[in-house]
Amino acid sequence: MIEGNLDKTGIGLFDKMNGIGAHEVIIETPLHDTTISTLPERKIEDIIWAYRDRVVDLKKDSRFQYILIFKNEGEAAGASLEHSHSQLIALPVIPRHVFEEIEGARLYYNYKERCIYCDIVRQESFSEDRSVTENEHFLAITPFAARFPFETWIIPKNHNSCFDEAQPWEYSSLARIMKNVLRRLDKVLNVPPYNYIIHTCPLRSQMKEYYHWHLEIMPKLVRIAGFESGSGFYINPTSPEEAAKFLREAKV
Amino acid sequence: MIEGNLDKTGIGLFDKMNGIGAHEVIIETPLHDTTISTLPERKIEDIIWAYRDRVVDLKKDSRFQYILIFKNEGEAAGASLEHSHSQLIALPVIPRHVFEEIEGARLYYNYKERCIYCDIVRQESFSEDRSVTENEHFLAITPFAARFPFETWIIPKNHNSCFDEAQPWEYSSLARIMKNVLRRLDKVLNVPPYNYIIHTCPLRSQMKEYYHWHLEIMPKLVRIAGFESGSGFYINPTSPEEAAKFLREAKV
Repeated sequence: MIEGNLDKTGIGLFDKMNGIGAHEVIIETPLHDTTISTLPERKIEDIIWAYRDRVVDLKKDSRFQYILIFKNEGEAAGASLEHSHSQLIALPVIPRHVFEEIEGARLYYNYKERCIYCDIVRQESFSEDRSVTENEHFLAITPFAARFPFETWIIPKNHNSCFDEAQPWEYSSLARIMKNVLRRLDKVLNVPPYNYIIHTCPLRSQMKEYYHWHLEIMPKLVRIAGFESGSGFYINPTSPEEAAKFLREAKV
Repeated sequence: MIEGNLDKTGIGLFDKMNGIGAHEVIIETPLHDTTISTLPERKIEDIIWAYRDRVVDLKKDSRFQYILIFKNEGEAAGASLEHSHSQLIALPVIPRHVFEEIEGARLYYNYKERCIYCDIVRQESFSEDRSVTENEHFLAITPFAARFPFETWIIPKNHNSCFDEAQPWEYSSLARIMKNVLRRLDKVLNVPPYNYIIHTCPLRSQMKEYYHWHLEIMPKLVRIAGFESGSGFYINPTSPEEAAKFLREAKV
């Protein structure tokens, strides 16, 4: 069961919210004119460790309920600094989208007695239609109901709800697959602007069985317009199967 | 109670969804180089009647559950055609954001026995901090928890859940206040790109007491980036009170 500031109606979700938080910028490299996709794997691993170490430190502050790590690459994706960087925001509340994912995963778990992300890893490895690449510890896919063209998720193969509780060798694997996927996107889409975010467990809740951390990469190729803002639905002109085929076949 | 394809958990929300719908483009004027804010009020009223007449016609198709009317003005707001136009999309399902608004309004109604939008009209008319302008039938405000800088809502003063069931004189009033608000935005923000959407009742549900149609105008001044996509929360650097003051004091 989810503890803390969640309930089924959504009322009370923000009961405990107050105006505190933390915002940190992670400078990824001393080199001004570079992007994360061109860094050596070892350097990407350092960035991932910086994410992890900051989460481990900030979670000591009991006022924080969630830490969101994200990256905006390119001006069209909202990057306001040119120098390659990621950001971390610690929040006094669980973000809406994370709450919805967790609730969806919980309902699936109650119904199937299996983690939905573990089932996705199994199914997508088997069918291959939406798989982009994989290594020992991670699978990269274009999700079945992708919101954006070429949206790509990197999911750990071993069940684990929290990013900061991964094994050291998993961070090294993650660095390898992140570089691989970002290079594929660069190749196929000619160095696109993109956002990525890490969805992980809230800091003060138990959901070890049914939630599963992952990284979502969203290339910025189309604009969010009136339909999306008004409906909460996304018009995606590229099927995930087509996007996966392009990415899978790219030579990197 | 909401009937049809809604339930409290969100599961089953999309049970009846299938691949049908309608997409229509409403050409607002024969003149290529103009915007809706510079059209005469009488012409804006014609556009509103076109919206209304298309809703009345399309709702005869029992497969549709919702009709979303929206406008993208300017390339940054997602307009792919230069010529001034609005769009209408009929959907076989109630959009997420509308569903959430309706649920919020229903819970408020159950608690207070009053419509939340009627209460907003009362409170914002009284305090004036976030009011932009008003006429006999409508109030324009910057909402208390605005997601975007200079976001402005136009709310009918008389309770009515459905846009297409408004009185003829209300459409004429709406045209007047739309022109007034859009001119204020043009003046203060130097003809900004924007989206607007009409949130109205679903086609096959009864919610006459607690839902209240309205128009939401969202100037496109900041980018949706990783934090917004990952969290569902919006960073708004301009307080609604400050935005309302600028808009209220603009000479139009």
